[in-house]
Amino acid sequence: MNKEIKLCMVGAGRVGKNHSRAITRHVPSGKIVALVDPSKEVREVTGKEFGIENQFDNLEQAIDKINFDAVIITTPTPTHQALASQAAENGKHVFLEKPMALNLEECDQIINSTESNGVILQLGFMRRFEPEFVNAAERIKAGEIGNPMVIKSLTHGPGLPPAWARDLKTSNGMLAEVNSHDWDAVRWLMGSNYKRVYAEIANLKGEAFNVSTPDFYDTVLVNMKFESGSLGMFSGVCPCGYGYDARMEIIGDKGIMQIGEMKGQSIVACTNRDQGLISPIYRTWPQRFAWGYIYELEHFIECIQTEKKPRVGGEDGRWAVAGVLAGTRSFREERPVYLKEILD
Amino acid sequence: MNKEIKLCMVGAGRVGKNHSRAITRHVPSGKIVALVDPSKEVREVTGKEFGIENQFDNLEQAIDKINFDAVIITTPTPTHQALASQAAENGKHVFLEKPMALNLEECDQIINSTESNGVILQLGFMRRFEPEFVNAAERIKAGEIGNPMVIKSLTHGPGLPPAWARDLKTSNGMLAEVNSHDWDAVRWLMGSNYKRVYAEIANLKGEAFNVSTPDFYDTVLVNMKFESGSLGMFSGVCPCGYGYDARMEIIGDKGIMQIGEMKGQSIVACTNRDQGLISPIYRTWPQRFAWGYIYELEHFIECIQTEKKPRVGGEDGRWAVAGVLAGTRSFREERPVYLKEILD
Amino acid sequence: MNKEIKLCMVGAGRVGKNHSRAITRHVPSGKIVALVDPSKEVREVTGKEFGIENQFDNLEQAIDKINFDAVIITTPTPTHQALASQAAENGKHVFLEKPMALNLEECDQIINSTESNGVILQLGFMRRFEPEFVNAAERIKAGEIGNPMVIKSLTHGPGLPPAWARDLKTSNGMLAEVNSHDWDAVRWLMGSNYKRVYAEIANLKGEAFNVSTPDFYDTVLVNMKFESGSLGMFSGVCPCGYGYDARMEIIGDKGIMQIGEMKGQSIVACTNRDQGLISPIYRTWPQRFAWGYIYELEHFIECIQTEKKPRVGGEDGRWAVAGVLAGTRSFREERPVYLKEILD
Amino acid sequence: MNKEIKLCMVGAGRVGKNHSRAITRHVPSGKIVALVDPSKEVREVTGKEFGIENQFDNLEQAIDKINFDAVIITTPTPTHQALASQAAENGKHVFLEKPMALNLEECDQIINSTESNGVILQLGFMRRFEPEFVNAAERIKAGEIGNPMVIKSLTHGPGLPPAWARDLKTSNGMLAEVNSHDWDAVRWLMGSNYKRVYAEIANLKGEAFNVSTPDFYDTVLVNMKFESGSLGMFSGVCPCGYGYDARMEIIGDKGIMQIGEMKGQSIVACTNRDQGLISPIYRTWPQRFAWGYIYELEHFIECIQTEKKPRVGGEDGRWAVAGVLAGTRSFREERPVYLKEILD
Repeated sequence: MNKEIKLCMVGAGRVGKNHSRAITRHVPSGKIVALVDPSKEVREVTGKEFGIENQFDNLEQAIDKINFDAVIITTPTPTHQALASQAAENGKHVFLEKPMALNLEECDQIINSTESNGVILQLGFMRRFEPEFVNAAERIKAGEIGNPMVIKSLTHGPGLPPAWARDLKTSNGMLAEVNSHDWDAVRWLMGSNYKRVYAEIANLKGEAFNVSTPDFYDTVLVNMKFESGSLGMFSGVCPCGYGYDARMEIIGDKGIMQIGEMKGQSIVACTNRDQGLISPIYRTWPQRFAWGYIYELEHFIECIQTEKKPRVGGEDGRWAVAGVLAGTRSFREERPVYLKEILD
Repeated sequence: MNKEIKLCMVGAGRVGKNHSRAITRHVPSGKIVALVDPSKEVREVTGKEFGIENQFDNLEQAIDKINFDAVIITTPTPTHQALASQAAENGKHVFLEKPMALNLEECDQIINSTESNGVILQLGFMRRFEPEFVNAAERIKAGEIGNPMVIKSLTHGPGLPPAWARDLKTSNGMLAEVNSHDWDAVRWLMGSNYKRVYAEIANLKGEAFNVSTPDFYDTVLVNMKFESGSLGMFSGVCPCGYGYDARMEIIGDKGIMQIGEMKGQSIVACTNRDQGLISPIYRTWPQRFAWGYIYELEHFIECIQTEKKPRVGGEDGRWAVAGVLAGTRSFREERPVYLKEILD
Repeated sequence: MNKEIKLCMVGAGRVGKNHSRAITRHVPSGKIVALVDPSKEVREVTGKEFGIENQFDNLEQAIDKINFDAVIITTPTPTHQALASQAAENGKHVFLEKPMALNLEECDQIINSTESNGVILQLGFMRRFEPEFVNAAERIKAGEIGNPMVIKSLTHGPGLPPAWARDLKTSNGMLAEVNSHDWDAVRWLMGSNYKRVYAEIANLKGEAFNVSTPDFYDTVLVNMKFESGSLGMFSGVCPCGYGYDARMEIIGDKGIMQIGEMKGQSIVACTNRDQGLISPIYRTWPQRFAWGYIYELEHFIECIQTEKKPRVGGEDGRWAVAGVLAGTRSFREERPVYLKEILD
Repeated sequence: MNKEIKLCMVGAGRVGKNHSRAITRHVPSGKIVALVDPSKEVREVTGKEFGIENQFDNLEQAIDKINFDAVIITTPTPTHQALASQAAENGKHVFLEKPMALNLEECDQIINSTESNGVILQLGFMRRFEPEFVNAAERIKAGEIGNPMVIKSLTHGPGLPPAWARDLKTSNGMLAEVNSHDWDAVRWLMGSNYKRVYAEIANLKGEAFNVSTPDFYDTVLVNMKFESGSLGMFSGVCPCGYGYDARMEIIGDKGIMQIGEMKGQSIVACTNRDQGLISPIYRTWPQRFAWGYIYELEHFIECIQTEKKPRVGGEDGRWAVAGVLAGTRSFREERPVYLKEILD
């Protein structure tokens, strides 16, 4: 069997818990040896649940006290660059949650620090590891539906994001926090970068949720043109009460392919002919991407063990951030925005 | 255009209404010129709804007073033989609802009187005309799934049958009144007659519905062996609160084919992630077999116009009755029953 | 029964045939008494198939020679205004295929001539009559999914449009000829007019189909903001080899609703576990909207019989044309276009 | 974290590999410390794949040489009793694959030796651990569909069973080797024992597969009456080329519930409108019950760690064997067989 990889989990919140569960139960050659979170209360709960005894306020302390191979960064976006660079400079491999960072400068710093220190950088785009997305990508690449003409994607998530994540002063809002997966996945499956982006937003639930953030929006539709000449779009809705919804659809010049469905379990019941048939829906993202979260972490461990480059890295994270910035400029200025305006 | 065919609707109840609607709205070359029902009240309602002015207590009167080409018999099973023979002897073509009759002697009388009078006899097995069943039958016959090994069918219907239809003294009960379609459809799709039949019944809802008929059963499972050596089964449940359900599944040595689904309309909604996705179910048989009822009547009219033999006739009705008799003997005597015991 | 309505079918091509079939077989109180088409060959084929003996080169001749109540106009868009006004001025009710006309002036002329002559004007938006769309609309209006936030629609059709329909000099191209249904349906289901429109187009199959029309596009994505503040989008792909595809999805603040599916028949088969399960897809629009075409024509006949205003009329057709013009200006000028720029 | 449980895998074939994979990758607190198989070649391949260095010809050697807590018995049915009793007598907990044994005497010996030695006995009925079956069972028990009236189940598997497993001299054939899961699952979900059983079999593919075993059958349909008065049925088809298929359907007096589907992955594609929509099917049982195999082994480990009785044990295995014996007698004697004939 392969060498055990020692991990430091940075962030003990929802994503930290999700990844701790995946590693502890399903990735036997990864071992979480340290847990970092500024909140003692939060880290004690997560630490207890997953048997992680070594707990620290910050990454520096963990590096000082404990021997480990890699960090898994699950903290809020504004902290990503500093943590990733700090880890890299101390020779730790980096698994970094999406969105990569707040801007392209931060992305470049992360890329540079990981590259110059010879450590692995993997981004947390779990759709790239969810079996049906993986198989669909292979089939598309093999030409099954021909040259891709249009791609559609969506991410609709149930909970109101935390305050920092919906304020455009401290984050890039829903386009980044919810739709990073769409930015990445459309680019991945189309095999082309977006060239021009147009976004429409709406704030339709803010009042009901007592959200006073001035820039808040809960609904977004993005149109895009790819460098290949093909077209794409995605939607974001958050908070979205009906469940967690992530699906894609691609039309090529030879056919169509749909990936994912809303149905979360293969049970169908009917107890009232006026109501009709009922099936479970995916309720949450850990449920929707159960295998994706396991496989992305398995892949990270395996890349460390075998000194392989991850299938999804810094450039992919940077492109998603560039899309977010273009989309945000588009709805602010009410016009289509070229990526070159952002990238140059 | 083809010659208009004049029809006498015999029976103004649920099935009579259903067929009147199909003809009036969707079979323009058929015209209902007379309506027969012993209940003045019932026939006036149906007559008014479909604009049928000539109404009679019995078929004899209609034959005396009105000129028509054919009868559509939708009355209770015990009346079938007399009405069908009477129509035939007066030169009228016969469309006869299932079950054909109470026993094989009656079936033979119907077959003989229609044949000897040179009139058409079509049985009301609408599954044979519902597009997905028709296409499936063609594909099976063309060998798509290879030699059929097992067939499964079901008919579950919502309402408690009328008293005469659940009493084994006046009818053949659910095996006949509900499952005639299964008896016919398994034989049709397998291309083979059943050779041996075993039936289990249960009375699980009778008490809740205050049914005191001694032989009442609301649940039946039938196993059968075909002359071809293949196997089959079907279930019947009636009354069945969740909707009207009729589906089939056939496994051949090269594959499987499923026909029909419970979903009655392609709408999916979710308003509560704890409840899940909801789709309409088929609520009633007129909704489930909307096209089948139209096409079987179109076919009848066309057979009259072109002097063609209907796709489903007396022999098919007789086989279904034979199956009913074998199944009934099976559950009464708690043993498998050979068709030859019934047919000889 | 209601009075028979005499109809003149104007246009004997694909749509003319489709509507002739619906009326002849399924709308008994409508009778086609005249057929108009400039091509003798085309009108003879269609006339023979549906038993229409009176055939004319143009509408004027039909009006002169034959007594009828209404016209059904199925000819190319550039002819709509002249034909509709001519019919109206002769006291004929008008059923007019989509798109209503080439521009708003023509729409106004049609509206004026029908209104001033007191005849009915119904537009051929059959989605408004297809049962699942009708039921979904009722459920949305009743508040089932709350306030609509986002609507998505699509129309992907199999065949390459005729030359006049893909040339922006003689038509408004795919946005009009294919996506008129989406323009109408999103407005109908959202209960709000679009306020701003952004369109991206692509020509990805033109070369393979030897299309030399300079403005040709086969792929379009439209984003829109409604007056209500909600968002919408639709896609168009034509020619689209995989089938005829028309589906919608609406997210409200209380839930989601999907309307329509690709599966065209409830048969599922599998004969090879490496290939998987196979179900029929809708191949053509007459198959996809079989009931919608019947019900829209039934409705038209009934409106004439009962002097009722149709559920979908001139204003709806005009809004769809306005959307087309805004969308076309958007992709030409590469910017979002406000409807007020078009309507003023 | 809980104490690591040391396991001896008995049998290195297909099932042994499947369980080794589940434990090695997904059940971190279980560790396979020994592998037993009479074939050196087979055990070396499996041992290498899962890093199991200690390999033995037979269980006795493993017990002598290695310290472990439990055995996982995946060898052919005729070996079950001896192996399970030997393990129990040496104080090892027992996870035993289905079918439990060849006859009730062997079942009793296994139950007695595990009970008298105070070790855990768990049967390998993985449907009881597959999430949708578990949830369905809870919902049925909670009364969602009311009193169960009819249950239907099926297991259709792709490969021709090995010679010993299709010969009624050395095994109980398909009813045991393939349909043990159905015998257990119908009893579990109905909450009642079967009282009477009727089975029809057929040999429809034997010739094509050159099977000369005299008793061979590849197709079976079983009908049953439960002690509760309700009815049940299941089918078995093996070899079955179209995939691995395991689904259930239960009708209660308040509704219906379907569990499982043929679709093995949520991808839908269409590249040809004449062929239609294609989705992957479950190809194999490890794919179909991926989570069930993980969870049943997690449960076994947890029962050992916490000294808990497994959710599925010796009595359940014994009832499945009793069903097999009743079914076999039924088709041999061509009559319904009461369980009391078998159990007394």
